Amino acid sequence: MILITNDDGIHAPGLKALYRELSTLEEVMVVAPDTEQSAVGHAISLSHPLRVKQVSLDSLQGWSVTGTPADCVKIALAELLPRHPDLVVSGINLGPNVGINVLYSGTVSAATEAAILGVRAMAFSLNTYKNPDFDAAARLARQVVARFRNWAAWPPRVCLNVNLPALPEDQIRGIKIVRQDTGPLVEHFERRIDPRERIYYWLAEINERRDLDPDTDWGALAAGYIAVTPISFDLTHYPSLKALSP
Amino acid sequence: MILITNDDGIHAPGLKALYRELSTLEEVMVVAPDTEQSAVGHAISLSHPLRVKQVSLDSLQGWSVTGTPADCVKIALAELLPRHPDLVVSGINLGPNVGINVLYSGTVSAATEAAILGVRAMAFSLNTYKNPDFDAAARLARQVVARFRNWAAWPPRVCLNVNLPALPEDQIRGIKIVRQDTGPLVEHFERRIDPRERIYYWLAEINERRDLDPDTDWGALAAGYIAVTPISFDLTHYPSLKALSP
Repeated sequence: MILITNDDGIHAPGLKALYRELSTLEEVMVVAPDTEQSAVGHAISLSHPLRVKQVSLDSLQGWSVTGTPADCVKIALAELLPRHPDLVVSGINLGPNVGINVLYSGTVSAATEAAILGVRAMAFSLNTYKNPDFDAAARLARQVVARFRNWAAWPPRVCLNVNLPALPEDQIRGIKIVRQDTGPLVEHFERRIDPRERIYYWLAEINERRDLDPDTDWGALAAGYIAVTPISFDLTHYPSLKALSP
Repeated sequence: MILITNDDGIHAPGLKALYRELSTLEEVMVVAPDTEQSAVGHAISLSHPLRVKQVSLDSLQGWSVTGTPADCVKIALAELLPRHPDLVVSGINLGPNVGINVLYSGTVSAATEAAILGVRAMAFSLNTYKNPDFDAAARLARQVVARFRNWAAWPPRVCLNVNLPALPEDQIRGIKIVRQDTGPLVEHFERRIDPRERIYYWLAEINERRDLDPDTDWGALAAGYIAVTPISFDLTHYPSLKALSP
């Protein structure tokens, strides 16, 4: 069984497209947030309880949860699913999750949470915010799922962060295994005045990057590859561990 | 200049104690959430704007922000501070941030955000939820800050996650440099019925662990050490990168 979740919410078209494609492979259950949860990072709900609602939309069977993507994975495995899934698939996110953005991504955190709980997982994001063709993206996602899900060398505690180009299939250059880009984002705050003459700030990000390294998620995606990055939840910086120790 | 932030909010006693101790070292500014933001992970605010309010409490000068710890660091550096700080200190958090919990921690994410933006940073958490002695903890934190802040080998893009024992100073066994524990948490959902007879769930975590490795943050803290873990925001699992590549 495959568990599908996301951070754009259970009614997002990216999730529905993924559901349609993956249910051609095998049984799929959906447990996803009831509302959009973008940029929630790896948040979990401690200060308020979760409510779940059974959802039946077209052929889609599942539950909506009043929580974050990580909450969804936790409660799906602990309470909602009849058995542990073989694979958790998160997405398809509207917009890429590459570089530093991976840290802010609810889509990726759902996959990371699955890895923490001992289940193989992949996060999928589509490299566009405008006119997304989620049907095409879901077909690519199905191919990636089929290719990696039974990967014999899949290490415990690792999940895959997959970014899909928003290109016609014949222009996609293949799959590239890449590291996370760690360059800084170009961003600033837009200062505005509200109708009551009070100041507020919008975080504005300019996703333009020069000198992209083709061996990173950002660089590979920009070059037309499906970018696959194995990620871990061990944040330890091992080189420093040695440098700091007496 | 040192920037102090946290996730328990600008009025939290852990922040005030830290402010009092660190301002004996040098100039300190505070930019912190206006309300408690625990377990927000590395969330940032994209769907709503931020408001800031100048705060002057006793000797404490700073701003409260309607956002997450990561938001606070971003807007402090971009808009609020007269110049870049030399160091960002986050905390002191009520309760430890060790093992998998590091991923859910707003306290740690503030330090990570500073590292992303090129500023040295340390996150401090105190290993108790009950009757915290933040004055004693802040004195320890000042010692740790003094010891590491000018560390010559501090690598770019790395911050320090520091967990303080809740013990009398003469029972603390020293500082230990350790990796993040990656063992699973023991947790479950408590299913309850509300007064309107609807079901809801509380996430309940049992922080009991056996077989703790003394070379991890969790193990060292439990053994009475100040646990210092260098952490990075590059989530790439490099061993898998090689294993996956053709």
